Amino acid sequence: MLSEQCKTRVQGYLDSSGSGPGKIIDWILIGLIVYSVVTLTIDTIPGLSPALKRFLTISEVVVTLIFTLEYALRVYSAPNRWRYIFSFWGLIDLVAIAPFYIFLGLGLAGVDLRGVRAFRLLRILRLLKLARYSRTLARFHRAFELAREELLIYLLLTLILLFVSATGIYYFENPAQPDAFASIPHSLWWAMVTLTTVGYGDVYPITAGGRFFTFFVLMVGLGIVAVPTGLISSALSQVRREESDARLAALEAEEAAQGRGDG
Amino acid sequence: MLSEQCKTRVQGYLDSSGSGPGKIIDWILIGLIVYSVVTLTIDTIPGLSPALKRFLTISEVVVTLIFTLEYALRVYSAPNRWRYIFSFWGLIDLVAIAPFYIFLGLGLAGVDLRGVRAFRLLRILRLLKLARYSRTLARFHRAFELAREELLIYLLLTLILLFVSATGIYYFENPAQPDAFASIPHSLWWAMVTLTTVGYGDVYPITAGGRFFTFFVLMVGLGIVAVPTGLISSALSQVRREESDARLAALEAEEAAQGRGDG
Amino acid sequence: MLSEQCKTRVQGYLDSSGSGPGKIIDWILIGLIVYSVVTLTIDTIPGLSPALKRFLTISEVVVTLIFTLEYALRVYSAPNRWRYIFSFWGLIDLVAIAPFYIFLGLGLAGVDLRGVRAFRLLRILRLLKLARYSRTLARFHRAFELAREELLIYLLLTLILLFVSATGIYYFENPAQPDAFASIPHSLWWAMVTLTTVGYGDVYPITAGGRFFTFFVLMVGLGIVAVPTGLISSALSQVRREESDARLAALEAEEAAQGRGDG
Amino acid sequence: MLSEQCKTRVQGYLDSSGSGPGKIIDWILIGLIVYSVVTLTIDTIPGLSPALKRFLTISEVVVTLIFTLEYALRVYSAPNRWRYIFSFWGLIDLVAIAPFYIFLGLGLAGVDLRGVRAFRLLRILRLLKLARYSRTLARFHRAFELAREELLIYLLLTLILLFVSATGIYYFENPAQPDAFASIPHSLWWAMVTLTTVGYGDVYPITAGGRFFTFFVLMVGLGIVAVPTGLISSALSQVRREESDARLAALEAEEAAQGRGDG
Repeated sequence: MLSEQCKTRVQGYLDSSGSGPGKIIDWILIGLIVYSVVTLTIDTIPGLSPALKRFLTISEVVVTLIFTLEYALRVYSAPNRWRYIFSFWGLIDLVAIAPFYIFLGLGLAGVDLRGVRAFRLLRILRLLKLARYSRTLARFHRAFELAREELLIYLLLTLILLFVSATGIYYFENPAQPDAFASIPHSLWWAMVTLTTVGYGDVYPITAGGRFFTFFVLMVGLGIVAVPTGLISSALSQVRREESDARLAALEAEEAAQGRGDG
Repeated sequence: MLSEQCKTRVQGYLDSSGSGPGKIIDWILIGLIVYSVVTLTIDTIPGLSPALKRFLTISEVVVTLIFTLEYALRVYSAPNRWRYIFSFWGLIDLVAIAPFYIFLGLGLAGVDLRGVRAFRLLRILRLLKLARYSRTLARFHRAFELAREELLIYLLLTLILLFVSATGIYYFENPAQPDAFASIPHSLWWAMVTLTTVGYGDVYPITAGGRFFTFFVLMVGLGIVAVPTGLISSALSQVRREESDARLAALEAEEAAQGRGDG
Repeated sequence: MLSEQCKTRVQGYLDSSGSGPGKIIDWILIGLIVYSVVTLTIDTIPGLSPALKRFLTISEVVVTLIFTLEYALRVYSAPNRWRYIFSFWGLIDLVAIAPFYIFLGLGLAGVDLRGVRAFRLLRILRLLKLARYSRTLARFHRAFELAREELLIYLLLTLILLFVSATGIYYFENPAQPDAFASIPHSLWWAMVTLTTVGYGDVYPITAGGRFFTFFVLMVGLGIVAVPTGLISSALSQVRREESDARLAALEAEEAAQGRGDG
Repeated sequence: MLSEQCKTRVQGYLDSSGSGPGKIIDWILIGLIVYSVVTLTIDTIPGLSPALKRFLTISEVVVTLIFTLEYALRVYSAPNRWRYIFSFWGLIDLVAIAPFYIFLGLGLAGVDLRGVRAFRLLRILRLLKLARYSRTLARFHRAFELAREELLIYLLLTLILLFVSATGIYYFENPAQPDAFASIPHSLWWAMVTLTTVGYGDVYPITAGGRFFTFFVLMVGLGIVAVPTGLISSALSQVRREESDARLAALEAEEAAQGRGDG
């Protein structure tokens, strides 16, 4: 009974939709996420002073302990513990703190685990919670749902186009530039950089044939940029129209009801 | 009679809309397409081990034989054989296997036919069948149909703009960079790379006049990216609206019919 | 009287909306425009053989004489001669042939007039006539008219943004790269190449301050690409809606008229 | 009383919505802004002749004195002086002239204040007034208001995506290119230049892992370009629809009123 009450209270503190102390704790946790992400970022800069290095290490230990406490409390207070542990946010929370302990365990054993630290940055995804309760995100979600199948087909078309482009340019440019266009997988890099209009300039066709081919690829490539824009744009338009139609229908129903009441 | 029955059964096996064995065969063929595309891609990487080279050659022979069998069965089971052979998919199927046999015939005769192998990659287009029966592709098709004339005019405008840009930059930059802007055809390469905002950085204006000219070209060039997006987006919006109007009309017709029935 | 009849006939031959001989002459003239543009383009390639050079010169003389004849006939047959001469197409037609005669006159006098030849390429604009009578171009025109004021304000915003970006980057990067960012006018080149996302890579910020500034500039710069797209897209949507509303209204009016007739 | 009348008259002269002399003064001030921005720009070009330098300095003094007079008159004639001084335009006006006097004061004292001069260019923002009274800007404003929350969430998503991209590419590319991808903050530069499709080409991945990662980043990055376009486009569509609905509603209300009058 007492334990149940305690659980409910802890839950209230951690629930970001709650008012009062829950809200404050939520903002503190968001601040800690931003802080930990910033310190982990700074930590990668080469040539930091030993004092700053030591400060960053200590601050990381402290922050990770707080997140561990948060995770433990969330597991403790969850109505259904296993469900929380295996939920999207539960896994993110675990993955964000686990590297520290693996690092501590194996790192003391002399294993180099620098790469594992990257997982701690997954914690940044929790910032998405900032937008969790907004109507806007619901609209985004609805628009993506409407356009989902179209986006998938667009992805399929993009992959085929990338492949066809890479194959074509390989046969045009390989004899002239055997290093830059060494194979079709190498040419895929060019195809991707070109079709997205990034154009780093590290590889580009120099033969007349390759340039003609690039012209055709780019004429279609502009469509690659255009189609998903059109998809999302038209889906968002529809969501907005649905919303205003729903408002209109509600209004009309109300008027009709009033009309009957008057009659 | 028996032959007719056999034909119908083979047709059923190859028809991807069919259920049961047809579905499974369809997925096996799609898997084979992906597999053959991947192996042909890897085959172009220089410096592969002889063992892997041999494996790729054997796997190619086997895959091509399977596709040849598929082609033969499709021709055999088609209701109208010549129509299938000269249909879009029929030609793709033929072009995808023909290079192997030409290669075999002429290659043994000592002719180098490396370029012909590229045609085998056309088989990747068959992946489009994955999206063949989806409502989404129909919507795409309808949107492109609605915007077709507009896209053609956009293409004409683009070509004129490319040409005008190339001519202009040639007169501005040729005296300063006689190599990069050697002639108008050379300048077309710059015009294309710039107007699509790819910007490799291999050629760019260095004179004040050329840069001013580029400013005007780019102000219009952004429109080149913008117009087809607008076209497709507005066409997709219209298709969606047509669909919901059709649904609404069907609903109203139903209600009206019910109303008459009630009256 | 006879002259009047002759004028009308000539006019019919040159009018591209006409059927029969007018249509054929129109296509011949379009073919000549494409031919003359292509030859003028090839003419700029360095290192052509003398025979090809001579052929190109002769072909240019012949084509220009034909265009001169066309111009003379258009002036002759125009209902209002001065109006035609000072109309957009009349000026294009004149500007397209004038350089040849100026070149002939002054070129014989030993003046170098290579630059003047560029004007002949303006003839390419006549290809726009291909799209002259299409309903699509009317829709384009209507959409641009709807969005005209918005596009002008977008242009003003773009210019201000370009200027502010150039000024900002100048103060950040000038001390570090005194050559690439030598002055605000030099920095405008960077601003333009960056905000249009072309990114040649000839100039880019290297200081931390300049890169932070670039981040803000690009966040707004994406909007530069987005806003005109949104404008044209929404204008085209409206034009299509207007068209379907007009069709609907016409249909309803017809039904109402029928209803009255029945009653 | 007399002072009051004088104030009203001055206000009339400075009010750009007014007709007659106010309009003329407004255009003169706009001309002066453009002139002062152009001269400040030219002033940064290195190697100007001493005569031009002297002319630019004198012209700057004169222009600043005129703007000081304008500012004084605006403060004098404002109905609520403090409100004007702390309004957006009031602060812009002050910030645009203040550097000159600070420069004069401290510059004479031998302090180098070149950077402060940049503030004078803020005056360019006053050109926005050109679009102040247009219905178009109101439509823009309304569309941005409609899409504001969505744009904010898009910005949050962009920041998270930039960060995740920078972290990922750092772990892939740092071992191969320890200079270009020295730390996560360094990698953020790459992430920004790539996701906006600018692609200067100063940093790009060279490892297979980094290039695969770039592929995924770019597939999402295209969405970054697409989403705000879709947002603004759909918001503008809605504004236009609202406007035409309002016009329709007004028309219907009028008809109904007429109908009642007739009945």
